[in-house]
Amino acid sequence: MSNIRGRFSKPADKLAALYTASLSFDRRLYKQDITGSIAHVKMLAKQDIISEDEAEVIVGGLEAIRAEIEKGKFKFAPEQEDIHMAIEARLIEKVGEVGRKLHTARSRNDQVALDMRLFLKEAIADSLSGIRGLEAALLDVAEANKSVVMPGYTHLQVAQPVLLAHHLLAYFEMLQRDYERFSDCLKRADVMPLGSGALAGVAFKIDREFLAKELGFSKVSQNSLDAVADRDYILEYQAAAAICMMHLSRLAEEIVLWSSAEFGFIELDDAYATGSSIMPQKKNPDVAELARGKTGRVYGNLIALLTTMKGLPLAYNRDMQEDKEGLFDTVDTLLATLSVLAGMVATIKVNAENTRKALERGYVLATDLADYLVKKGAAFRTAHEIVGKLVNYAAGKGKTLAGLDMKEYKKFSPLFNDDVRSITIESSLAARDVVGGTAPGQVKKALAAARRIIKKK
Amino acid sequence: MSNIRGRFSKPADKLAALYTASLSFDRRLYKQDITGSIAHVKMLAKQDIISEDEAEVIVGGLEAIRAEIEKGKFKFAPEQEDIHMAIEARLIEKVGEVGRKLHTARSRNDQVALDMRLFLKEAIADSLSGIRGLEAALLDVAEANKSVVMPGYTHLQVAQPVLLAHHLLAYFEMLQRDYERFSDCLKRADVMPLGSGALAGVAFKIDREFLAKELGFSKVSQNSLDAVADRDYILEYQAAAAICMMHLSRLAEEIVLWSSAEFGFIELDDAYATGSSIMPQKKNPDVAELARGKTGRVYGNLIALLTTMKGLPLAYNRDMQEDKEGLFDTVDTLLATLSVLAGMVATIKVNAENTRKALERGYVLATDLADYLVKKGAAFRTAHEIVGKLVNYAAGKGKTLAGLDMKEYKKFSPLFNDDVRSITIESSLAARDVVGGTAPGQVKKALAAARRIIKKK
Amino acid sequence: MSNIRGRFSKPADKLAALYTASLSFDRRLYKQDITGSIAHVKMLAKQDIISEDEAEVIVGGLEAIRAEIEKGKFKFAPEQEDIHMAIEARLIEKVGEVGRKLHTARSRNDQVALDMRLFLKEAIADSLSGIRGLEAALLDVAEANKSVVMPGYTHLQVAQPVLLAHHLLAYFEMLQRDYERFSDCLKRADVMPLGSGALAGVAFKIDREFLAKELGFSKVSQNSLDAVADRDYILEYQAAAAICMMHLSRLAEEIVLWSSAEFGFIELDDAYATGSSIMPQKKNPDVAELARGKTGRVYGNLIALLTTMKGLPLAYNRDMQEDKEGLFDTVDTLLATLSVLAGMVATIKVNAENTRKALERGYVLATDLADYLVKKGAAFRTAHEIVGKLVNYAAGKGKTLAGLDMKEYKKFSPLFNDDVRSITIESSLAARDVVGGTAPGQVKKALAAARRIIKKK
Amino acid sequence: MSNIRGRFSKPADKLAALYTASLSFDRRLYKQDITGSIAHVKMLAKQDIISEDEAEVIVGGLEAIRAEIEKGKFKFAPEQEDIHMAIEARLIEKVGEVGRKLHTARSRNDQVALDMRLFLKEAIADSLSGIRGLEAALLDVAEANKSVVMPGYTHLQVAQPVLLAHHLLAYFEMLQRDYERFSDCLKRADVMPLGSGALAGVAFKIDREFLAKELGFSKVSQNSLDAVADRDYILEYQAAAAICMMHLSRLAEEIVLWSSAEFGFIELDDAYATGSSIMPQKKNPDVAELARGKTGRVYGNLIALLTTMKGLPLAYNRDMQEDKEGLFDTVDTLLATLSVLAGMVATIKVNAENTRKALERGYVLATDLADYLVKKGAAFRTAHEIVGKLVNYAAGKGKTLAGLDMKEYKKFSPLFNDDVRSITIESSLAARDVVGGTAPGQVKKALAAARRIIKKK
Repeated sequence: MSNIRGRFSKPADKLAALYTASLSFDRRLYKQDITGSIAHVKMLAKQDIISEDEAEVIVGGLEAIRAEIEKGKFKFAPEQEDIHMAIEARLIEKVGEVGRKLHTARSRNDQVALDMRLFLKEAIADSLSGIRGLEAALLDVAEANKSVVMPGYTHLQVAQPVLLAHHLLAYFEMLQRDYERFSDCLKRADVMPLGSGALAGVAFKIDREFLAKELGFSKVSQNSLDAVADRDYILEYQAAAAICMMHLSRLAEEIVLWSSAEFGFIELDDAYATGSSIMPQKKNPDVAELARGKTGRVYGNLIALLTTMKGLPLAYNRDMQEDKEGLFDTVDTLLATLSVLAGMVATIKVNAENTRKALERGYVLATDLADYLVKKGAAFRTAHEIVGKLVNYAAGKGKTLAGLDMKEYKKFSPLFNDDVRSITIESSLAARDVVGGTAPGQVKKALAAARRIIKKK
Repeated sequence: MSNIRGRFSKPADKLAALYTASLSFDRRLYKQDITGSIAHVKMLAKQDIISEDEAEVIVGGLEAIRAEIEKGKFKFAPEQEDIHMAIEARLIEKVGEVGRKLHTARSRNDQVALDMRLFLKEAIADSLSGIRGLEAALLDVAEANKSVVMPGYTHLQVAQPVLLAHHLLAYFEMLQRDYERFSDCLKRADVMPLGSGALAGVAFKIDREFLAKELGFSKVSQNSLDAVADRDYILEYQAAAAICMMHLSRLAEEIVLWSSAEFGFIELDDAYATGSSIMPQKKNPDVAELARGKTGRVYGNLIALLTTMKGLPLAYNRDMQEDKEGLFDTVDTLLATLSVLAGMVATIKVNAENTRKALERGYVLATDLADYLVKKGAAFRTAHEIVGKLVNYAAGKGKTLAGLDMKEYKKFSPLFNDDVRSITIESSLAARDVVGGTAPGQVKKALAAARRIIKKK
Repeated sequence: MSNIRGRFSKPADKLAALYTASLSFDRRLYKQDITGSIAHVKMLAKQDIISEDEAEVIVGGLEAIRAEIEKGKFKFAPEQEDIHMAIEARLIEKVGEVGRKLHTARSRNDQVALDMRLFLKEAIADSLSGIRGLEAALLDVAEANKSVVMPGYTHLQVAQPVLLAHHLLAYFEMLQRDYERFSDCLKRADVMPLGSGALAGVAFKIDREFLAKELGFSKVSQNSLDAVADRDYILEYQAAAAICMMHLSRLAEEIVLWSSAEFGFIELDDAYATGSSIMPQKKNPDVAELARGKTGRVYGNLIALLTTMKGLPLAYNRDMQEDKEGLFDTVDTLLATLSVLAGMVATIKVNAENTRKALERGYVLATDLADYLVKKGAAFRTAHEIVGKLVNYAAGKGKTLAGLDMKEYKKFSPLFNDDVRSITIESSLAARDVVGGTAPGQVKKALAAARRIIKKK
Repeated sequence: MSNIRGRFSKPADKLAALYTASLSFDRRLYKQDITGSIAHVKMLAKQDIISEDEAEVIVGGLEAIRAEIEKGKFKFAPEQEDIHMAIEARLIEKVGEVGRKLHTARSRNDQVALDMRLFLKEAIADSLSGIRGLEAALLDVAEANKSVVMPGYTHLQVAQPVLLAHHLLAYFEMLQRDYERFSDCLKRADVMPLGSGALAGVAFKIDREFLAKELGFSKVSQNSLDAVADRDYILEYQAAAAICMMHLSRLAEEIVLWSSAEFGFIELDDAYATGSSIMPQKKNPDVAELARGKTGRVYGNLIALLTTMKGLPLAYNRDMQEDKEGLFDTVDTLLATLSVLAGMVATIKVNAENTRKALERGYVLATDLADYLVKKGAAFRTAHEIVGKLVNYAAGKGKTLAGLDMKEYKKFSPLFNDDVRSITIESSLAARDVVGGTAPGQVKKALAAARRIIKKK
């Protein structure tokens, strides 16, 4: 609040200045801000709005400031309201009067929109490559445990046998859609707003296409009010990140479950496990728990910005300064979570004995038994009822299905025959030989296809 | 809960049955459910899993049930748990034993995923056309008021003159991005899940591609666990709807502001205004207020499903039944809001006198004055300070800028000259002659481009 | 929108009328509305604003309407905008001109505030008794399984032995705080708003204290603008409900976990379990899953109303009509969830063998071993490290702590002695003999105290 | 993650260590942590668990560490996982082996619960006094402008005259309820958790009541699992803060509206206004806009923690580490917003001429006219219709109500008489002479009552 007070008779109230200042967090945008300013200045010179010499001086000054910041030598003075003013003030300090020309044909409103778009484009690129990293880890574990069987669950009840690789490929599919969503989001982010001025466009003969090319944007914004007033591209990223974190929270939940003593499906590598301050025997899946827990903040950041933007009249309102911290936090959280889960997944040790043993806990071949009856001519609903009664009987006797003799089978349906004995976990898997099914051949194809996808780019 | 209890020795607790039942809301999916079942049955016959005759009987039964429902003659019995069981039970009642074959090679898990996808695809199509409707209304009003000037605001303070058409086109741009987001969402929704079974794929030689073609999907799902366990396509729609409602809430806010006595920019048509129960003079913008207020429920539905899905292990969990009511509510809310705002906007009467008068309330040409000095050679930042002092001086004297004489101007900068008098609202508009700017020529081009876009499809 | 259009030249647009109508959901408030109107009319007569005879006729009419509604004989005409107008219109139809006096000294704004407060007070009372019901079920199960031991978990890793009753009492404590929160919320809800008029107070000599007494409120609102403009008492209920559902989602999660084959701690009663459409062997904890999943909608309803209320200028805005459906849904969801969980918990069968067996899966007495060393003089941190190494050694050898011989113990610390053998699950429990600890004596006292609390009211 | 790894064969992965570390934010709790540890050590000595001499050494060490931190001399080493370990490690460094006894009879789980409760209790106290500060500012402005009249609005349409003081008192009422909510929240926060250990209670003869007294708590927790596993007291604060921010966002919205040129009701003090980077004439209400915008982050923090806690099994899970940053941010945001709004409100300059002029924009006495007819014997609904038509007629003629002659009045109802001329803004105000109404006498009483309330404490 302290900078642009030409008209005012009083300094800003200290608390108010602090309340409105954004330098403490938007300094993170220094790189984008300087990159944008350099392109802007080049354009101003190209269009004869300032001279080539002036441009050279300003660009030199900006580059020097960037170096200062990167070397930790830049003094972020608390009386500077934001990163834009901090850099401009330092520029004027360094290069003198000519620095006062930097802001020609520009407003903080289009400048900050530019910075955010440059930032977001990088964040999207990083998110895409973070997803690829986790996908690769999932494929590695799937391939390394190609023949491991485990229970597929519904309602956390053992349901049908599946290959572990098949289970892991489900996460690959989710992440693929996340990948697509971030890619689609890029289309909306990849729009150059400079030239929109405060809200109405600028009154100089600028070259917006030049700016777009210089800054790597594929198009320019088509309405100046919209360009400075909307933040939907940030919301779209936040929403894609929230959905991605939802997926990651499910993976994390399964890692927590599977590494419990009760499941015992996996053991975490020591590098990804944590001890207890009081119980020395514990090996805790803290990384997975935090991944799950951090879903909350990413949801929260989404709802925060949705709330902030609700009902704001056009064009720029200061409320919109609140777009930054939540985005930064979401980007940091998502990227870290993708990376750390990739490392954790890649080092997981699968206990194939336990996953197979878990298949014994339920009547996991009951569906196959019903399908068997259907193939012998029973109507599905009837077959389902027969097997239901059979399972109930077996459970009452404390027997497994394999433990029943043929007479017992026949009591429930004359369709049962000796060939019912050929129903095994392996036959069950093999039978699900449809695209997307857990039959080993299908899973092999799916793994190969997944590999091809992640190699593409 | 009441239907599939073969194994159980007790009926469901009444309250529990009520708690888990979904028929009261998923009956809305009857059409999708029957469409899906008919395609499924045709496929079963084509693959010789059931006979052609059986298929014909079942299809006939399903079509008859559809007719019953549409004529209001179907008895939705509360003891039916959901629409799927209600239809299947009625089918068996109507066609006998053969009806018990309908569910062959299918599970409720892939069935419900199919129904939701069919529903969502329609909802997206409706959303796209709803957006087009509001866009058309905005363009109509913009064109009908092509030369109306009004203040552009930042911080709700009068900032610079803009054309009303330019202001309205900002909403067109927002809606265009919403349109794209829904279109992108369609790619993820347009995937055929049948054949995934309960979670592992089905054990029959089904033809998934046939099903996809029959049901109008462009591809089939690639992982059975994922297909029954994820709802991210619904979340993506919910997020796109939340962002769209955010945009609509801003339009609504402006309608409320503009129709206040203090602004007086527009008058609502009587058909879209509401009276007061106690103050007969009121003409209230209730429709706009509700559009703004309903943003809340759409945000809420998004966060509800995000919460529900968080941390669920694979594959299907009953929690996911909660995906429906929120989606239905969001779709209904969004479509109604788009329609009613289209009607309201289309019938708005703009008071061009008032919008122009509002330009007198601030020193709306100050930016132009600064740009004037820049063009005379002043550095922008210096020009900005000079004009700041000038405005302060004028405000102190209670004068407008036009009301200052040249001597007063000169006191602040020798660069001021008689040609400063040529700065007018019209010159200000004309000067913003960049792509996306408010210059009349630019706005005309933008209007034409917008028309072309909405005519395309 | 259709009713109060004296000033308007046009009927409301049909879609707009539909969009703004609330009758479809606020008809639920008929009872509150009629109760409020009857008290209002009595007061008007008492204050001589209308005559006693008029009051009698109106009250008679209102009572007859209530009976009509309760017998399903009231015609809710879609052209009626809301329940208030529907009842008033019917009243005038029934009793003629005198019915037109009902709304004297009242506005829809204070009327609807009254109805919501009457509704909420009932909802709070029901919530309190719903909590008591679940608390009682928890205590019953705790008492019936007084001596059952199970692992206490952190990070879902077996940590230390606890009594199942102690674990269940943790939920009692949570529910107690929920109970207090709802009770505190009642203080804010228990305020009579009638007399606030549209926003400024009414211009008749009414008796607000009489109204408060008649309607069972403990005080009257102190500012008319506030009384019609705020909905924070609803938000407070929504927040308390969200927190309560968070607690219930944790209980539900544990029920899901515990009834899995892997944990096997409990078996659900058939009346609260659900079968599968394709896997006849499944016994699914759908009720618990839905309780967990419905947390989403309650969070969503909270955020919806928070969003709606954000940034609204005083006093009444139509946005606030959105306060109802979300509240109704939250109340219904919370009450049903409390009831159904009470029934489910009360009928749970605990498998004490399995809960004890689970204690063998980790080195569950390690903390006790460290405490043992501390009591022998080791510093805690040192003891902790020693036991850590000991456990690591034992795990490497595949031995339990009991399976180590004294020589092995001594290798890690000379402080170990034969009395280390006296560390057992029972000694571990008994040692935690502090208020709030799991020692049997403490748990017994806690159970007794809990019983006293729920008997109080 | 790096500290307690006795059992592990590998160091933590660097990224994982970073991901799980909380020192960067929980260092803020150093004061609470040391205070808690000192009390704990005193209790250990009192109970003869450690010696008095040991206690003295440890307390001395802890006090020295506190001084180091407060002087900025403490080295927060990144390899320390959290503030608790950082302090304990430094303690051992400083005082040697005896420092290893600090953690006797304690776990990080009950330690962190204690720290959060100590923090929250302070935050509540600060919130209460922040509310009092804003209340005082509102009362000051109300009293300084006691006789200023302005329009009361519904639907942002001029409705009825009110006193500005009455309008401001509405916010006083809201803040009072916020005050109560925070006070009620304190009851749940004010519970001492130490002694709960990791989850089961501790195995030493500690004195929990002593700890509670020493640390200023009014009671001790009653269940060890609950004490380490729940965070509902934080959620309750977050919810109360969200509701309070909702109120503040409404005040902020009105400040933005009122300081627009179109309303012109107030002028902000220069110390609380902000200039524009390009439009020197602007005087922007950024502080109010940010207060409104920051509502988003407070809502977001609430939903974040609700999400994180959803569905977590007992007892402690690492997800819960996410409770801190959101709380800190909410506390900081709320306190800053209360303070800065207090300063802003206190320095507002009311333009009484403009607020009165705004009353001329609508037919603001129409309700009084209807009440007039009612007092002459018309039924309210009939009176309402008559005045509706009258207003419609006047608006058509472009006349005010005062501008109509008696013949025109009589055309609409014979009940109109010359005394209708006595209806004025002042008579309208005076007529609302009910508790909570805007009659000057009532407002005076309300002001006095409000003063008494805030003086109480």
